Amino acid sequence: MKIIRQGTAAFEKELSRLASRQVLISGQVRSSVEKILSDVARRGDAAVFDYTRRFDGVRLTPKSLVVPAADLRKAYRKIDPVLRRSLETAARRIRAYHEKQRRSSWWFSDREGANLGLRFSPLDAVCLYVPGGKASYPSTLLMTSIPAKVAGVKDIYVASPGASLDSNPVLLAAAYVAGVTRVFRVGGAQAVGAFAYGTKSIPAVNKIVGPGNAYVAEAKRQVFGRVGIDQLAGPSEIVVVADRFADPTETAWDLLSQAEHDELATSVLFTDDAELAASVSTRVLALARLSPRWKILQKSLEQFGRIFVLKNLSAAPGFVDRLAPEHVELYVRSPAPFAKAIKAAGAIFLGSDTPEAVGDYIAGSNHVLPTGGAARFGSPLGVDDFLRKTSFVEFSPKALRALGPSIVRLAQAEGLPAHAGSVAVRLVGRLRKAPPKKSKGKKSR
Amino acid sequence: MKIIRQGTAAFEKELSRLASRQVLISGQVRSSVEKILSDVARRGDAAVFDYTRRFDGVRLTPKSLVVPAADLRKAYRKIDPVLRRSLETAARRIRAYHEKQRRSSWWFSDREGANLGLRFSPLDAVCLYVPGGKASYPSTLLMTSIPAKVAGVKDIYVASPGASLDSNPVLLAAAYVAGVTRVFRVGGAQAVGAFAYGTKSIPAVNKIVGPGNAYVAEAKRQVFGRVGIDQLAGPSEIVVVADRFADPTETAWDLLSQAEHDELATSVLFTDDAELAASVSTRVLALARLSPRWKILQKSLEQFGRIFVLKNLSAAPGFVDRLAPEHVELYVRSPAPFAKAIKAAGAIFLGSDTPEAVGDYIAGSNHVLPTGGAARFGSPLGVDDFLRKTSFVEFSPKALRALGPSIVRLAQAEGLPAHAGSVAVRLVGRLRKAPPKKSKGKKSR
Repeated sequence: MKIIRQGTAAFEKELSRLASRQVLISGQVRSSVEKILSDVARRGDAAVFDYTRRFDGVRLTPKSLVVPAADLRKAYRKIDPVLRRSLETAARRIRAYHEKQRRSSWWFSDREGANLGLRFSPLDAVCLYVPGGKASYPSTLLMTSIPAKVAGVKDIYVASPGASLDSNPVLLAAAYVAGVTRVFRVGGAQAVGAFAYGTKSIPAVNKIVGPGNAYVAEAKRQVFGRVGIDQLAGPSEIVVVADRFADPTETAWDLLSQAEHDELATSVLFTDDAELAASVSTRVLALARLSPRWKILQKSLEQFGRIFVLKNLSAAPGFVDRLAPEHVELYVRSPAPFAKAIKAAGAIFLGSDTPEAVGDYIAGSNHVLPTGGAARFGSPLGVDDFLRKTSFVEFSPKALRALGPSIVRLAQAEGLPAHAGSVAVRLVGRLRKAPPKKSKGKKSR
Repeated sequence: MKIIRQGTAAFEKELSRLASRQVLISGQVRSSVEKILSDVARRGDAAVFDYTRRFDGVRLTPKSLVVPAADLRKAYRKIDPVLRRSLETAARRIRAYHEKQRRSSWWFSDREGANLGLRFSPLDAVCLYVPGGKASYPSTLLMTSIPAKVAGVKDIYVASPGASLDSNPVLLAAAYVAGVTRVFRVGGAQAVGAFAYGTKSIPAVNKIVGPGNAYVAEAKRQVFGRVGIDQLAGPSEIVVVADRFADPTETAWDLLSQAEHDELATSVLFTDDAELAASVSTRVLALARLSPRWKILQKSLEQFGRIFVLKNLSAAPGFVDRLAPEHVELYVRSPAPFAKAIKAAGAIFLGSDTPEAVGDYIAGSNHVLPTGGAARFGSPLGVDDFLRKTSFVEFSPKALRALGPSIVRLAQAEGLPAHAGSVAVRLVGRLRKAPPKKSKGKKSR
């Protein structure tokens, strides 16, 4: 891994390059997604089946589209019992963490006589997208479906390309553990379109959530407004902040655990210890060469793997905020002050016993996190993403008398006479029925 | 207003037509926004100034771009004192309501020895878009800026087309009352681009929020991912549910108060009282003819103003949910059961003394609400929109020993060896330093 010292010209240049990374989508992707979506909107199932045959080489029928519930149970029973228990431990812990995120509706009355409230209620139906190929992860299925369950969503549909599903019994077992409503063998932009518009065989949902490739991300962006979406997922990222107490081998593994995801994954180390920098760099390369994922590692480390040696580690939080990474690992003796100082990150892992991988699987916190700098404004997926809020307002006659005249003034100032009228007509009407008491100091009407 | 009885063919047809309304953006808008954004990204200020001259006929300079703070104070002092007090009452009540939405960070330890938390922190900088022309509302400025303030956002920038700003001292006074950081005389897709990418004179922000025309909505959609956005605003909507106790004149005003916003605004009445339907219809037309906004009213009522007469009012919530409107007004004797039954709505107004206009100005709840059916998945603007969440995870050695083996299993099943390695190396390393106690019943490593 390239080592760059603070104070050199390369330092600022490399840091800026990494800070400006983002989820880029080409014009070609944009226009083919537009075509696919409008075709799905028009032709429904027929279009979905055509694109699935063309892109995934799979022939779907309305019947083969849905994985039978019995197959989920079968997969659950078939997989290695130790793995099954691990899935269940993960599910239990994810559930426990997300139950802390439950929201309660509230309601209050104020002295002017107005009752105001905010209600939280679950979305009716959601689609959880689980990508195919190299990123088809049972853990992601748990991370998206359990918050939806906790929120109280009734219809939880999973969409995933058929070929990946059929070769991945652990994914089916995870769907069984999570208790999703139905699993659909369909992926790509056509799946996003189908769940946004609804087809004969695929139900329209309120929201589409979960990671996917550039076509899926762009399709989500294009259907946004028609349905809700979460964020646009990009390649995974880690920033490790390590002091001289960090174990170089463990640090090397942590960087590799991010780099192995994707050729575009980012792995960065900030340290104030040049010796640690050197030994981590050596170990990363040695371990990478032994990995079955060597080809991915080579490319990702070459482009997006960097070790920055700082003059003083206390500057690290500022640099981390510039990168606004998905994951931050604080492999330092006293992680708390660093955690407090870092503002923009999806998830922060504290101390030597918390490698980032604990968050991917079993800690309980969500692993669907903002990437590509989106941690500047975005958040981990959670129960909030599966709730809708509704405001409640109830005025008493007293409240309308007290506040009505201000409404009339403001509406008039905005040139909206019927807004003013809807209040004035009531003030006058109520006056006829029961004259208001004189309020102190204010001119009445 | 057209009256349609349940049971007729028109009923289902008209209801479906209204239910399928949505924020539609043409391909022409999409491609010109693409061009504007890439030009702003490339040329910065120069592009922003060029488009502003071309579209708004205003010549900007880096100096004239920002409204001087003194001008906000001056506007505040100049406007009618009664109006000023109304603005302040509105601001106070909006603040009180949104303060109930504050979030608290939390942190807990579980029996396995893991510490887990979720932190809420304010975004650093946001842009509040306030449209020009017929929808340049001081109330919208309060509704977007106060939640941002309550969340703790430091830099709150307002963007609004110069011509509207200069002719609208109430808007400037509202900016003063809200205490925003700076007001920029710039609007349109070029403003959205500038705040997304940053230019020499315009700072890049974390999130862009607020309503706007089709160009602004499409620009927000296109910059989403680079920055956060709220929702895509469409024309305003109201559904009134009224029983035989409703006053027909008041009901008519309420429908008009929505219809007067926009030629595309939707105003719907559900009632079980054919007599009320007839008298509301007559009054709507009579009052509309007297309005200075007659031309807007005529078009909006013709296209999107409908009265549906139901056989039984208890069916109303189901029909309201199909429309998923921005506003619902329950002008019925016992509004609570209706409010409870309605699932998809931005804001619900209860009882005869709560015309929807109270929510536009002074109730305290937010008037930036999901439109175009987005209430199926979306929510009122609020403090949540200006916060970012960050997960915190800290494992003790005990937690890693207890849960580490499950992580290794899951990572292996997903074909991610370095994820497994980052945990395994610690399990082995800790074993060397301090052997774990035997855990009951489980095979150790």
